Amino acid sequence: MSAEPASFASSPVVILVETQMAENVGAAMRAMANFGLRRLKLVNPREPWPNEKAAAMSSGAFRLLEIETVASLEEAVRDLNLVLATTARAHDIAKPVCSPATAAGLLAASIDRGERVGVVFGRERWGLTTDEVGLADQILTIPVDPAFASLNLAQAVVTVAYEWRKVVVGDAAWTPFPEKERSPLAGKDDVLRMFEHLEGALDAVEFFRPPEKRASMVRNLRSIFQKARLTEQEIRTLRGVIAALEGRSTRPTARPYGKALETGPGKDPAGEGTNS
Amino acid sequence: MSAEPASFASSPVVILVETQMAENVGAAMRAMANFGLRRLKLVNPREPWPNEKAAAMSSGAFRLLEIETVASLEEAVRDLNLVLATTARAHDIAKPVCSPATAAGLLAASIDRGERVGVVFGRERWGLTTDEVGLADQILTIPVDPAFASLNLAQAVVTVAYEWRKVVVGDAAWTPFPEKERSPLAGKDDVLRMFEHLEGALDAVEFFRPPEKRASMVRNLRSIFQKARLTEQEIRTLRGVIAALEGRSTRPTARPYGKALETGPGKDPAGEGTNS
Repeated sequence: MSAEPASFASSPVVILVETQMAENVGAAMRAMANFGLRRLKLVNPREPWPNEKAAAMSSGAFRLLEIETVASLEEAVRDLNLVLATTARAHDIAKPVCSPATAAGLLAASIDRGERVGVVFGRERWGLTTDEVGLADQILTIPVDPAFASLNLAQAVVTVAYEWRKVVVGDAAWTPFPEKERSPLAGKDDVLRMFEHLEGALDAVEFFRPPEKRASMVRNLRSIFQKARLTEQEIRTLRGVIAALEGRSTRPTARPYGKALETGPGKDPAGEGTNS
Repeated sequence: MSAEPASFASSPVVILVETQMAENVGAAMRAMANFGLRRLKLVNPREPWPNEKAAAMSSGAFRLLEIETVASLEEAVRDLNLVLATTARAHDIAKPVCSPATAAGLLAASIDRGERVGVVFGRERWGLTTDEVGLADQILTIPVDPAFASLNLAQAVVTVAYEWRKVVVGDAAWTPFPEKERSPLAGKDDVLRMFEHLEGALDAVEFFRPPEKRASMVRNLRSIFQKARLTEQEIRTLRGVIAALEGRSTRPTARPYGKALETGPGKDPAGEGTNS
């Protein structure tokens, strides 16, 4: 393709046509950087770039972007192969209409073929002219609620950039950080011994009444704790709680809680308390 | 469930914790309305609601929303069954972590069970405290580019609200307006007669040289027009163009273009010109 760094050549260009407010340009810049877009073309903005208000609203994102100002949309699209025009209404043009999710797939497929692609966004007040939409290959529209369809310019950029990012990460369920590593799930043996501990303590205070209800009450109690998918540490914590409520806690005040539970005596017949 | 209108009870509550800037609240309101969310709880905002700046930034969206101010996040979540906390980093809490797309599915499934659900967003500068995240059932995080992870509050709301909207419309490819209805696609007979017209005109000026290349040149030319999936009207337009370039156009100036083509004479052996 070209000598440009892959990161610039291989992501869609965002084209903002005749923006009125620099703040919106800055917010769009920030959203682009958030979702990995790097090339911005400004078509005849009312407040020219560089611009302090836009830079401030971008929270520094402008430093990551390649930003170019051009005089017309025609000039902006000349080096592109595929152009999508974002509009909120059907212009009187028979072009394919696609959602942001579909658009992201089209853009990625085009880039995979070595093509250059761009997405055009219109003026804050009244969008794109029909002639400007005519320069695009397809119409992109965002699935807003018809009851309040007026979408802020930067929010439209967010939606498209976010769908692009989902294609890049390749998995709609992808998250930038994983769940915190949990301590190991307790083995069922530990879980069952905790249940027996609890039920023994409750038997001692005649909790299960009438006796014929005991089986179903036990089942319900066990169900509560099974849903929690307890870790080994959590089992130790709960056994400490049960022992404390039984009035038999022997936790030495100077020792860490978990450690005390591991080493404290108890009525546990399996002798867990000797495991330290 | 309750006597509330379905539209209020059956969509997620957005909870904004200790917002600093009213503009961000207004932008979040607008994004909520855009994507069909209707309930907002403000936890101890620095600039109390009602607020002129927020109202202006919302572009009137606040009128569609039920907005409540509460003193703490605990108070905000008391009437909910499922709470997701939006965070940009892993707090030191072992909770399930999900993407906006996964979150939207979880929220919808919970609502389908008659539950009340909410999504919590933190302060602009530093998000949520670990204790606040602790009040949630799951962590929601947005798949930003790690190179620029700082997402504006309203943009985070956009992302979550947009995914919610996709679940509501039930189809990632849904668009608020359809492709403009096209005039009927031309039948293959019309297409083939147009090809023959064009190729006859080109034969007359000895375009196909050398003769042994004629077959492949014809194939390439036909391929161009087949990709365009021409309508009946477009076939008429192109036949007018071919006739004009042949120097045989007889278009009467006072008549509409299409009509003239339909009624004008031509060398078309099938006599299309008599079809009016």
